[in-house]
Amino acid sequence: MIKITFPDGNIREYNSGVTPMEVALSISEGLARNVLAAKVDDQVVDASTPIQCDARVQLLTWNDTDGKKTFWHSSAHLMAEAIEALYPGTKFGIGPAIENGFYYDIDLGGKEFGSDQFKQIEDKMLELARQKSEYLRKPVAKADAIAYFQEKDDEYKLELLEGLEDGSITFYTQGNFTDLCRGPHIPQTGFIKSVKLLSVAGAYWRGDEKRKQMTRIYAITFPKAKELEEYLFLLEEAKRRDHRKLGKELELFAFSEKVGLGLPLWLPKGTILRERLENFLRRAQVRAGYSPVVTPHIGSKELYVTSGHYAKYGKDSFQPINTPDEGEEFLLKPMNCPHHCEIYKTKPRSYKDLPLRLAEFGTVYRYEQSGELHGLTRVRGFTQDDAHIFCRPDQVEDEFMKVIDLVLYVFKALGFNEFSAQVSLRDKTDREKYIGRDEDWEKAEAAIIKSAEEKGLPYVVEYGEAAFYGPKLDFMVRDALGRKWQLGTIQVDYQLPQRFELEYTGSDNQKHRPVMIHRAPFGSLERFVAILIENTAGNFPLWLSPDQLAVLPISEKYEDYANEIYLRLQERDLRGYVDHRDEKIGRKIRDAEVSKVPFMIIVGEKEQAEGLISIRKKGQGDLGSMTLDAFMAIAQEEIQQLTQDR
Amino acid sequence: MIKITFPDGNIREYNSGVTPMEVALSISEGLARNVLAAKVDDQVVDASTPIQCDARVQLLTWNDTDGKKTFWHSSAHLMAEAIEALYPGTKFGIGPAIENGFYYDIDLGGKEFGSDQFKQIEDKMLELARQKSEYLRKPVAKADAIAYFQEKDDEYKLELLEGLEDGSITFYTQGNFTDLCRGPHIPQTGFIKSVKLLSVAGAYWRGDEKRKQMTRIYAITFPKAKELEEYLFLLEEAKRRDHRKLGKELELFAFSEKVGLGLPLWLPKGTILRERLENFLRRAQVRAGYSPVVTPHIGSKELYVTSGHYAKYGKDSFQPINTPDEGEEFLLKPMNCPHHCEIYKTKPRSYKDLPLRLAEFGTVYRYEQSGELHGLTRVRGFTQDDAHIFCRPDQVEDEFMKVIDLVLYVFKALGFNEFSAQVSLRDKTDREKYIGRDEDWEKAEAAIIKSAEEKGLPYVVEYGEAAFYGPKLDFMVRDALGRKWQLGTIQVDYQLPQRFELEYTGSDNQKHRPVMIHRAPFGSLERFVAILIENTAGNFPLWLSPDQLAVLPISEKYEDYANEIYLRLQERDLRGYVDHRDEKIGRKIRDAEVSKVPFMIIVGEKEQAEGLISIRKKGQGDLGSMTLDAFMAIAQEEIQQLTQDR
Repeated sequence: MIKITFPDGNIREYNSGVTPMEVALSISEGLARNVLAAKVDDQVVDASTPIQCDARVQLLTWNDTDGKKTFWHSSAHLMAEAIEALYPGTKFGIGPAIENGFYYDIDLGGKEFGSDQFKQIEDKMLELARQKSEYLRKPVAKADAIAYFQEKDDEYKLELLEGLEDGSITFYTQGNFTDLCRGPHIPQTGFIKSVKLLSVAGAYWRGDEKRKQMTRIYAITFPKAKELEEYLFLLEEAKRRDHRKLGKELELFAFSEKVGLGLPLWLPKGTILRERLENFLRRAQVRAGYSPVVTPHIGSKELYVTSGHYAKYGKDSFQPINTPDEGEEFLLKPMNCPHHCEIYKTKPRSYKDLPLRLAEFGTVYRYEQSGELHGLTRVRGFTQDDAHIFCRPDQVEDEFMKVIDLVLYVFKALGFNEFSAQVSLRDKTDREKYIGRDEDWEKAEAAIIKSAEEKGLPYVVEYGEAAFYGPKLDFMVRDALGRKWQLGTIQVDYQLPQRFELEYTGSDNQKHRPVMIHRAPFGSLERFVAILIENTAGNFPLWLSPDQLAVLPISEKYEDYANEIYLRLQERDLRGYVDHRDEKIGRKIRDAEVSKVPFMIIVGEKEQAEGLISIRKKGQGDLGSMTLDAFMAIAQEEIQQLTQDR
Repeated sequence: MIKITFPDGNIREYNSGVTPMEVALSISEGLARNVLAAKVDDQVVDASTPIQCDARVQLLTWNDTDGKKTFWHSSAHLMAEAIEALYPGTKFGIGPAIENGFYYDIDLGGKEFGSDQFKQIEDKMLELARQKSEYLRKPVAKADAIAYFQEKDDEYKLELLEGLEDGSITFYTQGNFTDLCRGPHIPQTGFIKSVKLLSVAGAYWRGDEKRKQMTRIYAITFPKAKELEEYLFLLEEAKRRDHRKLGKELELFAFSEKVGLGLPLWLPKGTILRERLENFLRRAQVRAGYSPVVTPHIGSKELYVTSGHYAKYGKDSFQPINTPDEGEEFLLKPMNCPHHCEIYKTKPRSYKDLPLRLAEFGTVYRYEQSGELHGLTRVRGFTQDDAHIFCRPDQVEDEFMKVIDLVLYVFKALGFNEFSAQVSLRDKTDREKYIGRDEDWEKAEAAIIKSAEEKGLPYVVEYGEAAFYGPKLDFMVRDALGRKWQLGTIQVDYQLPQRFELEYTGSDNQKHRPVMIHRAPFGSLERFVAILIENTAGNFPLWLSPDQLAVLPISEKYEDYANEIYLRLQERDLRGYVDHRDEKIGRKIRDAEVSKVPFMIIVGEKEQAEGLISIRKKGQGDLGSMTLDAFMAIAQEEIQQLTQDR
């Protein structure tokens, strides 16, 4: 008898040699129907693998990442089977699962292949899946394996075999297809209920551009047809919402090769959005006791030698800036903390002055290779919504709570209602690795956990993930497409106060060292705007909309009235434009909708005669005609819906 | 007979050999009493110098810069006479007039000398002045001059004589003192009515640190005692208002050697001031049809090669920033225009889209030698309140008018009511020097003059002072101490649109080149804040004050009430602090006054019981007790006095 420990801590006894599938059946038939593979201790194995000793066992289904991975890897084999059936003589390279789906690199021996052939392969795969062929594992001697692929003349598999040791080689077979494979696989092909080939691309064998270019086919499969539909919808939706595409269409930002790669130019409309976000956060921060400061975008090399950044990142960063005469060296600012430490040092501080919370929308520059750049999410210059809290050790908990409050307030106000956190703590078995006093770490770690608990923030703890200079908490949000994004961070730091020799006079009249907390709710304005664009598909809330309204005269006869209406709205701090073009009203409405303008104000003969305006709301249609005041009330209520800060 | 032409164009005939003093007497005795010297053609001469031929003559009085200079130079001789009388054996170096007063470098042969001796010298000077000794000019042969100073054993004058040619040497004598001097001088010492020795310092002979250190005595004199008083008052006032001193005392900004020389750190209070100024201008600009944009603080070297900045300033600027891998080169942004040109180019523009007014509070970096740096007025990094107007040639006049309106609105709102302008136009005799079409220049120059005229802006025209790429207008303001400061500028530019190949499609469907107008009302926020500090002596208008109010509890019993009052004021967007210190109320009031806090809100037993607050206003004293609403009304009226934008 052996003991099987389940993830919930439950322990059951089984005969030695029991398989995960048998374990599943012993629990319920329903469960067994869904088991794709299993994790035994820390290894993912076939559901048919006998378990010989006491072990931790997790039964893997479609809901587990490793379950999905196994499903897709098995789907790659199924696709290979279909291709072999349709294109006899095809040779196969590798066919792994990836984050979403899988691919197989194949050599069609010069046959033409493109997306026109996708349907045929999909149909064949579904036909083969319906046969519910088992994935059968078979250990083979290296010589036999070589013989098998020599017969198929598959130089790729033969090359892969060269790197494998005799005794460790296995084949998997389902239906008429056999592949060199370590496994694991799902029990049988019948699990695969829907199939989609996504794209085809060239890929060099083993990633080496001097070697043969193979055909890489990307595909995805699901255990339910509905899930494929949902996936394809999200895929389309993600393309439609791509912030690079919308950023261009809505004229929010642009890049210029002449200015430099990865250096965004914020166009007028994007600047409105950005300024509104900054103002919103600035006000919230001032109310929370932060003091805005402004510091330069460069600092002497000496500053970063002191902070330790130069030693760590100097070689891989933008290189130092020399001066013509005086042998000085400056660096583009990669972070704001050293500057804020120098502000701390501009006068003596007492325990009564703490916490000191210095906030700055600080634009920093970090070198990234051009190939790594991506829209606004990976840039070379970005603005952090940065702040540094200098506090006494006994204030860390309180400050942490306040920061979480602020961050959650900001997330919710901006429409992100699903968030979670990762708390990164020390590896307690390796205390040497960390600087700062043991008791301060204990307190700070306990404070972070307590804050997350009290604020009802879902979190996972990762031991050993703390930086050597302090523990931290990272926020994640889930967007409208269910994608997770890492956003802001709160980070305790014992190191910089030491490196900059920061001090305060305690109530005991002695000198003490403050603790520093780094924090940034958005992380970077650029990245946040990218996420906001993708989350809203460019349909920003009214207070953030670059153009809140468009005044659309029905013809040029009503231009003066349109201008008058617009001026009066502008005086009341609404923004937008008058569409003066010589176009039909239908076209003007369509264009305003494409530009995602929330309110369209239509003025013609009737409106002018009655001194009214007719309102259309994007996504809701006609709201009828009303007085300007009535419209103002609607707009202002929408703006102030959550708070008065927008 | 010769013809004398006066500055007003008047011409009179005199006998050849007439002196300026005789000319003055021929006009009026009153005038003659004030004549200090004269400018004959372009040379300043003694009032007793005979005029032999036709000449332009300007009689110089105290109101002329050259009159003052002569007066002070003669005063230096008078001081030397007094010193020689009091300290026989003193040797004299040089004694010139300077911008405000004069100095003399002397060698006292080791005698101790300091400000304790000032009074004695001043008294002696006034005693000698009362003798009304004439300044007598005498040509001397070089040998005689050498003999004279050999007898006095004055190696300094002997060294000066070495450099002079025989025949060109003159002595001037007044009373008992004779000096080697080219002149000119005032008629007699009696003009000098008040005297003040200002300071004493060491100065190397001929500025050479390897040579003897002499004693330099700085002094100033006036023809009226009252003027000295006024001067000393302004001197003290300027010291008291020095923005470097007040910036430190009021905790507005700081410098850190570790961050780098000339790179200001804006402290929390200075940041409030700066943000208010930015917001004020941003709102005024948006109302005036500007579109804010945000661009990075670096640009590729290529960008500045295109703009021409690299060729012109590259060697004397911060040097290029290299990247670790890819051989790219970036430069710190010295101005925002190239970035704005690239924004212009992000899409095709039509004549209907113009003018396009792109505004940015753009922080730029320009290398200055460390010795040139001075507080906030000469820095290495500063934020321009920059904008670039891209317009059609026919829009230049209208745009110029609008910019002048905006600039004057801003100046007046900030308390500068005396302003003037310099209009810099082409040298029409050298048209080759300038780029752009002749007719566009004609139009633009006429437009600038017309705008200045129509807007009632006092201006002077300087021909030949235009840049090669366009004419401009510079604004000057006069501050509370009567000092002039150059502030913003409006500059027409035909060059950058050409270099960046900017285009728009005209109504004729052809491509045209837009004109660019650069403009910045403040010039630089840093410099403007410096001037604002000195103009207001740190007593900022309420809407700009970093702390608008201080709540001062009479004792700790009223802390809760004080906190409650402060919170309610903060909710209504007023800012300041509660003075929680364990100090007497008198001390709290004094400290708030030193910090130049406009309103002090005193709360004690009576106030708490009645639910009122007692108000003191800085500079006005007690305003009595009132409700919070009554105080809010006072404060808000003061904030909104000029406009609602603050």
